[in-house]
Amino acid sequence: MKWQDLSSEPCSVARTLSIIGERWTVLLLRECFRKVSRFDEFEASLGIPRALLARRLKSLVEQGILSKHQDQNHARRFDYVLTDKGWELRPVILTMLVWGDKHMADGDPPMLIKHKPCNHIITPELHCPECQTPILNSDIRVVRNRKMAADG
Amino acid sequence: MKWQDLSSEPCSVARTLSIIGERWTVLLLRECFRKVSRFDEFEASLGIPRALLARRLKSLVEQGILSKHQDQNHARRFDYVLTDKGWELRPVILTMLVWGDKHMADGDPPMLIKHKPCNHIITPELHCPECQTPILNSDIRVVRNRKMAADG
Repeated sequence: MKWQDLSSEPCSVARTLSIIGERWTVLLLRECFRKVSRFDEFEASLGIPRALLARRLKSLVEQGILSKHQDQNHARRFDYVLTDKGWELRPVILTMLVWGDKHMADGDPPMLIKHKPCNHIITPELHCPECQTPILNSDIRVVRNRKMAADG
Repeated sequence: MKWQDLSSEPCSVARTLSIIGERWTVLLLRECFRKVSRFDEFEASLGIPRALLARRLKSLVEQGILSKHQDQNHARRFDYVLTDKGWELRPVILTMLVWGDKHMADGDPPMLIKHKPCNHIITPELHCPECQTPILNSDIRVVRNRKMAADG
């Protein structure tokens, strides 16, 4: 397998990686979730080279993760805004945040997750929507989809 | 910010990326969750260059994500096994799988997630452990930890 071929692998993890597995893309998305939307703001907060930033933004627009909107008052200024498809990547970043808080934060986490409906600071957990219990890692089995195997 | 400095950023997402943000590392972990444990098996399933694979495995051992055990019957054969810290990365990969199934799978997902306690095929969802409701992306706010700001 080549890295460039990830998007055609029969694995949803590999295909997701084909988008968010490039350097800086996850941090760029983190900024988008914070409502950062302009090229100069991304550049200032991440400090990555402009050419690389431009490539990443272009790619995320092409993939339908961000949409690009012209600023009504500035002909050459654009906003990059998460699409629904982009917003739905948030759980990936939240689980990374939870793991980093536990294993990499040297004590108190720098950022806290607030759940607005109940107003608590929380640690989101994966949950089974069928039996309504938290998912333990040992309780999960990833199995081949027989329908797909039969089709293939 | 430089990519090499991610591990010292005051952000748990950036610090997590300093480990799993390298090419192939997430797919290597995916194989570990499938109980793949040997160098040759990783090489066969991922098809990545041996030198790169060796570097990634060494790094994951150094970071405490994998532990390396000598095979009792083969002096030069080793097993790479997830530590607890490594297993706790599983939610990151599961949320990537869920997103990829929805947005990248071209129809039926190739793999299914079975929750062993209830025996259902499920789509894990993030849940608030305080108010026991599914977390909508719009219901989350990531806020600065004031304690950290006061200390800093």
